[in-house]
Amino acid sequence: MVGVGLIGSGFMGKCHALAWTSVRAVFGDVPDIRLVHLGDANAALAETRARELGFERFSGDWRAVVADPEVDIVSVTAPNGFHAEMAIAALEAGKHVWCEKPMAPDFAAAERMAAAAAASGRVAVLGYNYIQSPAIRHIGVLLEESVIGDVNHLRVEMDEDFMADPDAPFFWKHEASSGYGALDDFAVHPLSLIEALFGKVSRVMCDMSRPYADRRTADGARRAVETHDVASTLIRLENGVAGTLLVSRSAWGRKGRLQIQLFGSRGSIVFDQERFNELRLYTTSDRPTEQGYRTILTAPHHEPYGRFVPAPGHGLGFNDLKTIECHELLRKIEGKPARLIDFDAGLEIERTVHAMARSFDEGRWVDVR
Amino acid sequence: MVGVGLIGSGFMGKCHALAWTSVRAVFGDVPDIRLVHLGDANAALAETRARELGFERFSGDWRAVVADPEVDIVSVTAPNGFHAEMAIAALEAGKHVWCEKPMAPDFAAAERMAAAAAASGRVAVLGYNYIQSPAIRHIGVLLEESVIGDVNHLRVEMDEDFMADPDAPFFWKHEASSGYGALDDFAVHPLSLIEALFGKVSRVMCDMSRPYADRRTADGARRAVETHDVASTLIRLENGVAGTLLVSRSAWGRKGRLQIQLFGSRGSIVFDQERFNELRLYTTSDRPTEQGYRTILTAPHHEPYGRFVPAPGHGLGFNDLKTIECHELLRKIEGKPARLIDFDAGLEIERTVHAMARSFDEGRWVDVR
Amino acid sequence: MVGVGLIGSGFMGKCHALAWTSVRAVFGDVPDIRLVHLGDANAALAETRARELGFERFSGDWRAVVADPEVDIVSVTAPNGFHAEMAIAALEAGKHVWCEKPMAPDFAAAERMAAAAAASGRVAVLGYNYIQSPAIRHIGVLLEESVIGDVNHLRVEMDEDFMADPDAPFFWKHEASSGYGALDDFAVHPLSLIEALFGKVSRVMCDMSRPYADRRTADGARRAVETHDVASTLIRLENGVAGTLLVSRSAWGRKGRLQIQLFGSRGSIVFDQERFNELRLYTTSDRPTEQGYRTILTAPHHEPYGRFVPAPGHGLGFNDLKTIECHELLRKIEGKPARLIDFDAGLEIERTVHAMARSFDEGRWVDVR
Amino acid sequence: MVGVGLIGSGFMGKCHALAWTSVRAVFGDVPDIRLVHLGDANAALAETRARELGFERFSGDWRAVVADPEVDIVSVTAPNGFHAEMAIAALEAGKHVWCEKPMAPDFAAAERMAAAAAASGRVAVLGYNYIQSPAIRHIGVLLEESVIGDVNHLRVEMDEDFMADPDAPFFWKHEASSGYGALDDFAVHPLSLIEALFGKVSRVMCDMSRPYADRRTADGARRAVETHDVASTLIRLENGVAGTLLVSRSAWGRKGRLQIQLFGSRGSIVFDQERFNELRLYTTSDRPTEQGYRTILTAPHHEPYGRFVPAPGHGLGFNDLKTIECHELLRKIEGKPARLIDFDAGLEIERTVHAMARSFDEGRWVDVR
Repeated sequence: MVGVGLIGSGFMGKCHALAWTSVRAVFGDVPDIRLVHLGDANAALAETRARELGFERFSGDWRAVVADPEVDIVSVTAPNGFHAEMAIAALEAGKHVWCEKPMAPDFAAAERMAAAAAASGRVAVLGYNYIQSPAIRHIGVLLEESVIGDVNHLRVEMDEDFMADPDAPFFWKHEASSGYGALDDFAVHPLSLIEALFGKVSRVMCDMSRPYADRRTADGARRAVETHDVASTLIRLENGVAGTLLVSRSAWGRKGRLQIQLFGSRGSIVFDQERFNELRLYTTSDRPTEQGYRTILTAPHHEPYGRFVPAPGHGLGFNDLKTIECHELLRKIEGKPARLIDFDAGLEIERTVHAMARSFDEGRWVDVR
Repeated sequence: MVGVGLIGSGFMGKCHALAWTSVRAVFGDVPDIRLVHLGDANAALAETRARELGFERFSGDWRAVVADPEVDIVSVTAPNGFHAEMAIAALEAGKHVWCEKPMAPDFAAAERMAAAAAASGRVAVLGYNYIQSPAIRHIGVLLEESVIGDVNHLRVEMDEDFMADPDAPFFWKHEASSGYGALDDFAVHPLSLIEALFGKVSRVMCDMSRPYADRRTADGARRAVETHDVASTLIRLENGVAGTLLVSRSAWGRKGRLQIQLFGSRGSIVFDQERFNELRLYTTSDRPTEQGYRTILTAPHHEPYGRFVPAPGHGLGFNDLKTIECHELLRKIEGKPARLIDFDAGLEIERTVHAMARSFDEGRWVDVR
Repeated sequence: MVGVGLIGSGFMGKCHALAWTSVRAVFGDVPDIRLVHLGDANAALAETRARELGFERFSGDWRAVVADPEVDIVSVTAPNGFHAEMAIAALEAGKHVWCEKPMAPDFAAAERMAAAAAASGRVAVLGYNYIQSPAIRHIGVLLEESVIGDVNHLRVEMDEDFMADPDAPFFWKHEASSGYGALDDFAVHPLSLIEALFGKVSRVMCDMSRPYADRRTADGARRAVETHDVASTLIRLENGVAGTLLVSRSAWGRKGRLQIQLFGSRGSIVFDQERFNELRLYTTSDRPTEQGYRTILTAPHHEPYGRFVPAPGHGLGFNDLKTIECHELLRKIEGKPARLIDFDAGLEIERTVHAMARSFDEGRWVDVR
Repeated sequence: MVGVGLIGSGFMGKCHALAWTSVRAVFGDVPDIRLVHLGDANAALAETRARELGFERFSGDWRAVVADPEVDIVSVTAPNGFHAEMAIAALEAGKHVWCEKPMAPDFAAAERMAAAAAASGRVAVLGYNYIQSPAIRHIGVLLEESVIGDVNHLRVEMDEDFMADPDAPFFWKHEASSGYGALDDFAVHPLSLIEALFGKVSRVMCDMSRPYADRRTADGARRAVETHDVASTLIRLENGVAGTLLVSRSAWGRKGRLQIQLFGSRGSIVFDQERFNELRLYTTSDRPTEQGYRTILTAPHHEPYGRFVPAPGHGLGFNDLKTIECHELLRKIEGKPARLIDFDAGLEIERTVHAMARSFDEGRWVDVR
């Protein structure tokens, strides 16, 4: 029996709750899950959400969740600025921690989180759920088996359009205090995939831009935008591979795009999160007259698709990725091999983001380490 | 508080269980759900599955589920041949029934089911989950708003390849006693969409074929295949629209294809279940130089996508459709409007399938009613 | 040196002229081509078009073209109703004939054309250019090599939207005297592909419909439409394969769609003329975890792509298909093997179209022969 | 009457010849074209090719073409290293020059070409045919009309795989003397599109890489590759727009990819040369529930598609782009407005390429001018 605490119940909070609710029925091989304690910004909200999401107790103070003796694992889904304090408190209280990405706007805080995790002996992992999809996992299999030979170049793009409207008003994400902009919001996701599939980034050269210099404020004035919605980065990996990582949160028409292009000596792979139940593979082992990208639909033989649906091509959903992540977390707690970005790996991702920002500021290549 | 009984725990049984598990957290506006009693072919299997899926009790006899006084709703997911007996027993015991499609191989049995539902005063619905997807629902909205004008022609195809391998052995689905073949397996799904979007089919003209005349048996002999993996039907709807309905379970490469093409006087709509988070729309209201099919990604403004994910383009999964269906069922039980295929509507679908088969046998157009 | 006469200089007339102009430079292995004589509806038009298209002489009377002793081959691109008279006259004058499809609205006239061709000893072929594309030719290669095993089912759709506007006025194509409607306009194209790839159609069961019952006339009244814009046909081939052939000229959004789906015992092929530089192939010889449709871009190893461009994926255009057809015609005249629909094969296509119409009229299956 | 000389008769030489052959019949509004003189590496080859391509005279010495008094325009399609000498000689002989891209491996030579063009008073243009496609031209119209608002970001990729095979032997394109690699081969094409659609590039930051460090030579040894098959560049345009330009000639699976993504304040445009008869457009002027990328098929209302085919969606081919370019050239010679990259604009493209290479060498941002 595992007791779960949840801090925050917005987009990702609900996503965690759904994962905790489903993981047993989907995978079968996990302990009973008890939804013990939900904490949110105030007691009234927490009560409503606890009832809807099925938690036994609620609290308007997140510290009560962390202190609850029946809570074994704490899901941290509050705004990024609170992650460090909450995660560290939970670890110090002897809880396992499942914290949404990124770790913290401030690198020193992220370092403290990693140190707390190391000191605690508990499992501390981050919510980089895109690495969990059957298609991405199968890319890992294909790379291990060298199906496209040695990878020599990669391109990754991540784009959405929630900042694309020039008439939308100024809000906190436009303030410098919120971070860099698209780098914090998006670059971390592609970096988690690069980390999972290839290893670390060694050098970066970044350019950033602001599609809209200023935005209207509530009082009818205009205020200069301080963050950057677009960031384009030349990268070099420690294994010698060169590539690019391009992100934008002002790309009209893109809703959840995360396109990966991997080029190897005997083929290539293309993937796009907007169609994450598909994978495109080109290999030179096909007869020349019939070479072409195969569009492979995910199926039970792409782990762990079959735990959800026994028929191919029926499709998983976004929330299912979080359920897979939850299962990996439970495996890790049980000491089994698991595919996750823990706080140490997460710290390397954030180190890379800060190096990108520094590269932009200084207009030059920057070594990540 | 609603008590749930589940009969059968295979592909669709697990799918029902996941829906029952998630529906409260996803939608919020439903009563507490209690997973009371799971019945399966024998007690050992039922026990294992009850534990995995989170049911309180189990039984190797489905009648125990139906008789359980704490069960309010019975999910019937046993093989098709058992549907009638189980559903009728549950209705007679005063339970609401959520039965997987199709109703029954034998039309008289389906008629008895509909009669039992009418007599019971309980809610009795079928698991036609494809009508629940946000894209399909949005097609309904577009048709109501006449965005593509008056529909004058439709084409529907449903194809998979689980029967496509000529070297796979003879099994019960190749026996005439199992039904017609692709008509039972697949044609009912497109018919549920036609029923939900347009109304009834009035006339049919069907051709069927067998890709493989015989198959090997366990003893190394060959046995003639008695069912048809492919069925192609010319149809006329009661509203005067002409169309075609083509199905195959031996279509190599198709995994969960269900393509709909709707042609109207001011535009057209194309949908494919293999990419069910997308919808393609062509309208003549666009400027001529920019007319083209728009690929619309599902988003929170396509009901009820937003209950799952607040961000557009992130995608629902196959199991989410069953959760939506479950929510509709709970709404119907509460007397609210709901989008479902009940036993009466289901009977009309099966009537159409039998008319198709008769049309093929007699080589002529057949009136459905 | 080959002398060319052209009758008609509209859409297909210009297309023939471009083919005659380019064929030598593209293929290299053909005789010199001399554009001798262009005939059109009147002398003024013929003069203008002869100058633009590069013909030496012109005439307002097509008989002058046929009679011209320096003309060896006559391209007949006048309206369908004139084909028989022109082609027969040209054959009787000892010319080879390259006539646009279809042969004639009236089957007896088509029969006379075939008889005249047989009697003349000249080459007489039809402009079914879709069979010439490198992708379609490569489908032929794949079928010969049995790459998808034995084909057991096919589906063909041909759709455009030039009749889709309900506000467009009544014109001659809506009169019964123009033929059946979509059957004449479109069904012949898919039939040419079936003929080229598989052989003859043996039985048909056709349904037709009118999206718009009447249309406005010049005087502001409304007149009943007599032809059918939509035709859907169940077909059986002489080789036993079952399939469907669906055509519409009122399908909003479709511009030049001609989709073919071929299902075999070891794979499937999908092709769409709107992207005719691509071919989609699924085979079970790929490893199961990587099976999927390959999108194959046409390339020099798909004959005769390389005669146009030596680099893969650069794409041929619609007019290039006519140039290939022209080359095949020249090969046939030289006695070499050629891939063409001659008048005999064309007659079989028209026989099938008339059988479809009769099937619709009588509401029953009709044997083509 | 215009007399044409052609130097070189390989891939692009044949492409020029086909354009010269067809341009009159396609467009109608141009003078008579006479194919006067073809020059190639030796007289035998020139004779064969002149016969095939329809030229009156031939020569094994290109200077004879330039000197021919009946030649008005010289098509220069010899290897890049010869462009400067040939083009300058032709201009000095009073001919108009149509030279394949790029101008010259050496920037000083390109400058001499531009100077010679200026001094000659003749028309001197480059073969950047991708800017001629109806889809690209229509992008220009959409940008002029501000259909996607103000463009704030662009991404361009150009990829092929003709260098992707690691087992292919070392040849002259791997020697430093041939230029930089992918920058020369490919980057110039996207730059021509940027030049045509937006204007000049002001700053660049480039990274290059070698997928394969060495290759086998004829004698069985291995030789270090000196050029770079991959180049990735951060760019800034003079109009302030930021973007990226990524090119590779070792990208397995890509055959003629040239993808453009343009992001504006009210929409976005996506184009890929591998499907150059299509254009994808997203605009916020659509109703939110139906916003999505429209796939627009080229049609007669996209200039000058209708000169080739009067029906939409039938598709132009790669060679047709050169015919359009040829028509623009003839218009320019007649003093009409024309869409072309002349030697001055071409020089700016090459200046940008050299700045990219310098940026890579020095590991820093470089101002193009």
